[in-house]
Amino acid sequence: MDEALLKQALEFGQPYTARGEVASYIPELSKADGRELGICVRSVEGGEIHCGYWQRRFTIQSISKVINLAMALERFGFDAVFNKTKMEPSGASFNAMSRISDSEDIPFNPLVNSGAIAVVELLLPVGLEGMLSAVRGLCGDPEIAIDEDVFQSEWSHSARNRSLAYLLQSKGLIDGDVEEVLRLYTQLCSLSVTAESLANLGQVLANGGVQPETGRRLLKEEVIRTTLTMMLTCGMYDGSSEFAVRVGLPSKSGVGGGILSVVPGEMGIGVYGPSLDSKGNSAAGQKVLEYISRTEKLHILGRLIH
Amino acid sequence: MDEALLKQALEFGQPYTARGEVASYIPELSKADGRELGICVRSVEGGEIHCGYWQRRFTIQSISKVINLAMALERFGFDAVFNKTKMEPSGASFNAMSRISDSEDIPFNPLVNSGAIAVVELLLPVGLEGMLSAVRGLCGDPEIAIDEDVFQSEWSHSARNRSLAYLLQSKGLIDGDVEEVLRLYTQLCSLSVTAESLANLGQVLANGGVQPETGRRLLKEEVIRTTLTMMLTCGMYDGSSEFAVRVGLPSKSGVGGGILSVVPGEMGIGVYGPSLDSKGNSAAGQKVLEYISRTEKLHILGRLIH
Amino acid sequence: MDEALLKQALEFGQPYTARGEVASYIPELSKADGRELGICVRSVEGGEIHCGYWQRRFTIQSISKVINLAMALERFGFDAVFNKTKMEPSGASFNAMSRISDSEDIPFNPLVNSGAIAVVELLLPVGLEGMLSAVRGLCGDPEIAIDEDVFQSEWSHSARNRSLAYLLQSKGLIDGDVEEVLRLYTQLCSLSVTAESLANLGQVLANGGVQPETGRRLLKEEVIRTTLTMMLTCGMYDGSSEFAVRVGLPSKSGVGGGILSVVPGEMGIGVYGPSLDSKGNSAAGQKVLEYISRTEKLHILGRLIH
Amino acid sequence: MDEALLKQALEFGQPYTARGEVASYIPELSKADGRELGICVRSVEGGEIHCGYWQRRFTIQSISKVINLAMALERFGFDAVFNKTKMEPSGASFNAMSRISDSEDIPFNPLVNSGAIAVVELLLPVGLEGMLSAVRGLCGDPEIAIDEDVFQSEWSHSARNRSLAYLLQSKGLIDGDVEEVLRLYTQLCSLSVTAESLANLGQVLANGGVQPETGRRLLKEEVIRTTLTMMLTCGMYDGSSEFAVRVGLPSKSGVGGGILSVVPGEMGIGVYGPSLDSKGNSAAGQKVLEYISRTEKLHILGRLIH
Repeated sequence: MDEALLKQALEFGQPYTARGEVASYIPELSKADGRELGICVRSVEGGEIHCGYWQRRFTIQSISKVINLAMALERFGFDAVFNKTKMEPSGASFNAMSRISDSEDIPFNPLVNSGAIAVVELLLPVGLEGMLSAVRGLCGDPEIAIDEDVFQSEWSHSARNRSLAYLLQSKGLIDGDVEEVLRLYTQLCSLSVTAESLANLGQVLANGGVQPETGRRLLKEEVIRTTLTMMLTCGMYDGSSEFAVRVGLPSKSGVGGGILSVVPGEMGIGVYGPSLDSKGNSAAGQKVLEYISRTEKLHILGRLIH
Repeated sequence: MDEALLKQALEFGQPYTARGEVASYIPELSKADGRELGICVRSVEGGEIHCGYWQRRFTIQSISKVINLAMALERFGFDAVFNKTKMEPSGASFNAMSRISDSEDIPFNPLVNSGAIAVVELLLPVGLEGMLSAVRGLCGDPEIAIDEDVFQSEWSHSARNRSLAYLLQSKGLIDGDVEEVLRLYTQLCSLSVTAESLANLGQVLANGGVQPETGRRLLKEEVIRTTLTMMLTCGMYDGSSEFAVRVGLPSKSGVGGGILSVVPGEMGIGVYGPSLDSKGNSAAGQKVLEYISRTEKLHILGRLIH
Repeated sequence: MDEALLKQALEFGQPYTARGEVASYIPELSKADGRELGICVRSVEGGEIHCGYWQRRFTIQSISKVINLAMALERFGFDAVFNKTKMEPSGASFNAMSRISDSEDIPFNPLVNSGAIAVVELLLPVGLEGMLSAVRGLCGDPEIAIDEDVFQSEWSHSARNRSLAYLLQSKGLIDGDVEEVLRLYTQLCSLSVTAESLANLGQVLANGGVQPETGRRLLKEEVIRTTLTMMLTCGMYDGSSEFAVRVGLPSKSGVGGGILSVVPGEMGIGVYGPSLDSKGNSAAGQKVLEYISRTEKLHILGRLIH
Repeated sequence: MDEALLKQALEFGQPYTARGEVASYIPELSKADGRELGICVRSVEGGEIHCGYWQRRFTIQSISKVINLAMALERFGFDAVFNKTKMEPSGASFNAMSRISDSEDIPFNPLVNSGAIAVVELLLPVGLEGMLSAVRGLCGDPEIAIDEDVFQSEWSHSARNRSLAYLLQSKGLIDGDVEEVLRLYTQLCSLSVTAESLANLGQVLANGGVQPETGRRLLKEEVIRTTLTMMLTCGMYDGSSEFAVRVGLPSKSGVGGGILSVVPGEMGIGVYGPSLDSKGNSAAGQKVLEYISRTEKLHILGRLIH
């Protein structure tokens, strides 16, 4: 894979930016330029290629759920996490309430809002500073920080997440201070990253938890396996399984326009494209990944059956 | 992997037969012996190992959905199939009606009853004889035939599937004769197979669609890729994603007690254990597969990140 | 009340005919003229006034559910009926499937399709001839007969009701021949009536079950009380309670454009206006009734608190 | 009606106290004695009869929703209230979230928790003191006050209502301070009343809004009409319509064990019986009212068709 391919992929994806819209439910997010598109790829051998708006800073949003899940698994174990959430796709949209309300005792999975909020309670002892440090390490990006404008904007539009959080409390899934959990959750959504930060994170995941450059193990292998599986089945909201069919790479999107994609054993990919489809996934970003996966034959099941 | 390992796996799984129950909603199925457990493994190199009740005949039930899906993709293409069903897990149980009824236009995926019935309409031109011939070929088992007792029992207890089928008709997803579609669907569920038949089928899927012994391509590679992806995300009813985390193999279960499991590029596995958990999956069969996957490190994401 | 008031009420309602649409899901129904509007009122003293298209024949559709319920209560008793359906509004639209499917054992009430189909099974021993005779008697209209064109049109578009009926069978709520139940149900929906027929029926209900002219008791008083209560709480689909607030008269609408309304102790009202609102109720018919109820102070709770 | 009848009714109802349970989800409520049963009846002519624990103080709980609705209609009008809630039964239990969450824009009606919370926002300008004064006036009971123990107990177990309230905020149905709305809502649920207070309130409603003793109009007639209609169709949670069939009196229950029942034009009834059925209605209280309604022929539709 080379930068020429990335260029073709961005050209293939560019028209799809017009088929989506920049997130508008949080005012600050609506300032992004929907036409921008960028990509960065880091191989486990250490090489990096990139193209387009790969250095643009944007907020990580729901991609933070991957880091939160991995950190919670690493520090507190499988059972601590999966006592608070199931592992199943919900069949519903990302902030759905009905599917966790009356009939279900616990959230469907750790990558929907309700499950992610429940997981963040586990991370309270780590704290914002601890999490920031972990995120910077995993993303190889010391400049990651809270985007205060986005945070304030989200915090003042967090009624739905607050409703979810109190519902979790009413079910005994949050024992502590709901507002504190919600604040940390929202802060972690407001971290500013680049496509390169995501590619670095993907590289660590692709490499089984070990940072190739330093040889340091950042996450246990079983944590990676579980996290990648959840990304594969639940990472793209209610379009996850179709994305698994078409692209076949464990991925996670955020409404800030980012997609983290992992080619297990091979490379990490970060994409930025803030124009979103109706499910909340980057409209053009998905097409860029589909182009690359098809051209380079990266679909995990396709690779295995050859 | 050798027969000693299979023996250990069956011993590990045996106690779990007591945690489930033989299917009772169809009288004929309730005659199975819940304590039985058997396994057969076929490698893409052609080797076979087996243990326990690997020769016991039982009805294929929902595992037929995998064959139906693959055949429909092969003969009529991706768009023909996915105009009739989406590709997403439903978050609900296998015969749920609510999730396909008012709010959703088309079934969630081709591996739940509603989606599978819609897919079978495509196969009407192939017909029962054509399908029987295909199934025998894919399973390398010329003795596969309709178990008439099970078929009659199911046919006289098919009110729920009939309700689903007429609902599909009301949505324009079945154009032809509903009763004819339903009859073929039920006949294909009533085919009698063994763990060995399933292992043979899995071997073809693991080998990308080519039967290793003959070198004949039975299914296109892209058909295999799509089918395996659907099995991975939707194959074990509403326990699919947890199974993907714990076992990590594209699989499909049936209420007859069978599980088809595929180690892409490596082998096909057939398991028989008619005692079912509350989701309708073989209680002990899942544990047998979990044991083997963990011991032999077969989890597809685990294999790729090494 | 006099014909001048009826004229004013129709004039008040006329503009609302443009706010709805004639039913189109059954082709034959779409031939009605949405601008037509008619009303007939029969007092328990025997007087009749009418205006507009009060003699137009149209099919009774869901208003037959009232007769079916009353007949089933009369002949087979309270428990026979309410073992097959609950008595609660569903909070959902008239042909909703989700609310009776997975979570609920029995239909919400006898005035939604699923509950009405279950009730019709009780009436099989009465048969079409027996029911026709009863309907003609209650409506004082010997010309009531099946509109064969409408029946054929509905019968060939009955997939959704067939789906509901087989769902009922799967729950053990229909023991007999589903097709026979569905046929009788559909035939009873296809009976052709006029606003006058409905006014006559309403007169009997308003008079506690006794036909004023003949003094003959056609229905027991407790049957009337139960039937009127169900009409009040469930008769106007998911707009029933709002209609109870605004109009306050036990009523039942049909997609043929009819509304049966009862002023208990005073009079029966039949309205015809085939232009339907989004809930399936006559758009202008409701306004005509609201006008009359407000002007004449007919709201049952308003009458009682004076 | 005389006290002998009340005695018989309580005797009829007494065994049903054993079929329910005192509310336990709020610790303070669980201290009530489930065997207690009391009733008070006030006629619009001014007479009062009572029996059993008619002087026992208990918290008004959901019966406050009737007062809130009436006050909001009186002060702010029909449109202000019904912009915030619909008027339909929900078909679901009293604190259900699913029915107001994703698919529905506004709560089903003002007598379920979500709708009632939305209505209370309208009452913020009236304030706790203003509402206390109004409640004391309507109930003819100057001793009504907040039960501080119950209030504190509810306030520390209000996660579910808080979740509902923030959901309302996210839908734009609460503009102001959610915590302030929730506090007033909970305070109004914590008012301590007796069966006699409820009978007095019922007397005013039965008399069309005028307090018989003083001749003072406390509520407009159209407010009464709307309030009574909502009580009739939605007052007994998801058992409202069955209660309307069996008893036929506009009523409202609370988990404190009270039922307010109105015989329009005739009398108000207050019942106390803290043992609740599975829907949250007083188990024995309903039977006491059924006995009285049947014996005295009070069913509103039965009265009108005579």
